[in-house]
Amino acid sequence: MKQLLLGLILSFGVFATASDMLPSWNEGQSKIDIINYVKTVTDKNSINFIPAEDRIAVFDNDGTLWSEQPAYFQLFFAIDTVRALAPKHPEWKTTEPFKSVLENNMQGIVDSGKEGLLKIIAASHSGMDAAAFRDEVNVWIKTAEHPVKHRPYTDLIFQPMMELIDYLEANGFKVFIVSGGGIDFMRAFIPEVYGIPSERIIGSTGKVHYEDGKIIKETKVNFIDDKEMKPVAIYYNIGKRPIAAFGNSDGDLAMMQYTDANQNAKTLQLYVHHTDAKREWAYDRKSHIGQLNKGLDYAKIHHWTIVDMKQDWKVVYPFELKK
Amino acid sequence: MKQLLLGLILSFGVFATASDMLPSWNEGQSKIDIINYVKTVTDKNSINFIPAEDRIAVFDNDGTLWSEQPAYFQLFFAIDTVRALAPKHPEWKTTEPFKSVLENNMQGIVDSGKEGLLKIIAASHSGMDAAAFRDEVNVWIKTAEHPVKHRPYTDLIFQPMMELIDYLEANGFKVFIVSGGGIDFMRAFIPEVYGIPSERIIGSTGKVHYEDGKIIKETKVNFIDDKEMKPVAIYYNIGKRPIAAFGNSDGDLAMMQYTDANQNAKTLQLYVHHTDAKREWAYDRKSHIGQLNKGLDYAKIHHWTIVDMKQDWKVVYPFELKK
Repeated sequence: MKQLLLGLILSFGVFATASDMLPSWNEGQSKIDIINYVKTVTDKNSINFIPAEDRIAVFDNDGTLWSEQPAYFQLFFAIDTVRALAPKHPEWKTTEPFKSVLENNMQGIVDSGKEGLLKIIAASHSGMDAAAFRDEVNVWIKTAEHPVKHRPYTDLIFQPMMELIDYLEANGFKVFIVSGGGIDFMRAFIPEVYGIPSERIIGSTGKVHYEDGKIIKETKVNFIDDKEMKPVAIYYNIGKRPIAAFGNSDGDLAMMQYTDANQNAKTLQLYVHHTDAKREWAYDRKSHIGQLNKGLDYAKIHHWTIVDMKQDWKVVYPFELKK
Repeated sequence: MKQLLLGLILSFGVFATASDMLPSWNEGQSKIDIINYVKTVTDKNSINFIPAEDRIAVFDNDGTLWSEQPAYFQLFFAIDTVRALAPKHPEWKTTEPFKSVLENNMQGIVDSGKEGLLKIIAASHSGMDAAAFRDEVNVWIKTAEHPVKHRPYTDLIFQPMMELIDYLEANGFKVFIVSGGGIDFMRAFIPEVYGIPSERIIGSTGKVHYEDGKIIKETKVNFIDDKEMKPVAIYYNIGKRPIAAFGNSDGDLAMMQYTDANQNAKTLQLYVHHTDAKREWAYDRKSHIGQLNKGLDYAKIHHWTIVDMKQDWKVVYPFELKK
């Protein structure tokens, strides 16, 4: 049905109006910035008009499209997995980051960063078929519960950002995820939960090889999709400079600067600023996860859009809509 | 206009019939195989029905969508480039594969293979912005002339395969290029000439880094998209197993076997067999370029579709249509 509607919208040039499509955004500068931007680049009579094939939008995932506290959700998957597999790996008792996981040392795990996380995933799934791994994540994400919110992880996606993705797509944008998260972890739920297909999900990867009709995961990390590597990932996977970039941390700054440096198009850069300690979490300059420090200064100086989660969003999560 | 038509076709479920869409294919087994396959996987009442989001089709490029004789077309670009840049690189006189290029030793160049070719591209464009490189290729391809056919290289695309791509897209398939060719070389002309967007072009890559808003090419090769690395490239870039694969050489065999090993869908594997010495070239088991030996045996045993270019195609190149 969504496909049919989108087809009709594109066919007849009946562009959806923002007032319909961003109901969870309060009226304010952030919403104005988004609507004005989309209007000007899709208006054939505007000097800022950009043809649909060049309307590339890139979104970070953790902290931008769903929560990332008290730790990246993939980390909780990794912890559950390592614990389940520990009896087969006595060496983990003395090897980091496994040691921290088995000793329930959260600080040690968090300190190992995205790379440590990917090491855990890679090592614990080495020799496994990538498709089987995705099935495993899929089962986990449907049964596991967030340690603070006590809800499934997929309940903790940001409703206003989901509306923004739909709004951009309805206006001919091609939406990509460009995240530090593991690619198979994301592919296991993003297509179903966000409606973004696997070929538009870019993430960190492990080494793999082809064997007997299958893709087999190896132990080594191949590519960490963070900071200056995000523009590199966009180059390898998309091959076009984005016109709109959405992030929440210093890890997204290079991707947003790369977007801003587009010489051929008016661009939009938007930071989600976590200011809502009540409904979500409040953190920025000093956070160990999703630190937003250099990026916040840069965004202010360059007049990027900074979403104040507390002020700008009527609801944070989809389940609040049902109240 | 094409976009509008496609929108209407998809919106109202009016699927284009093959008789309209494959006019350059002679009636015969290859055309029957293609049409029957597309009909059965797009028919909601068929047990072979596959939802549109899973209709992933992968095409090799050199020898599958355009000619590759007497050498990969990218090689001619590399030769022209090396000659133009040679005065700045005295060391090339004694270093292969540059030495062979400067001495006009075609056999030496061909023997260096796709890797040698990528070395030439990488070394001759090291330190260059990837976007500027694409502009350079774009100028070259619009002015250079094929040494045998004496036509622009983009005249030497296969008309029946272009029709096949359009036919698949009109039936909801997502079409990707998965080629050993350099990614920036392909991105410079494929979107315009084949109508396939850059994010659906997968190829060999060089190392790059991000610097001051630009992607800068380095000298090292990053990924050779050939043989067993084609399924790996599909995994990294698409994340779904294809249902249809099109190739012409042993270099495509692994990608086609990976497609054939799809447990969840009926699949189509098709080899273009170069049998037409008059209109194009005739070569297979003993060719140095586009060798089709193991693949030909494998295809016969497994009843894959083998296109006999001479028998199956009314025309090879688009310019023959004008006769």
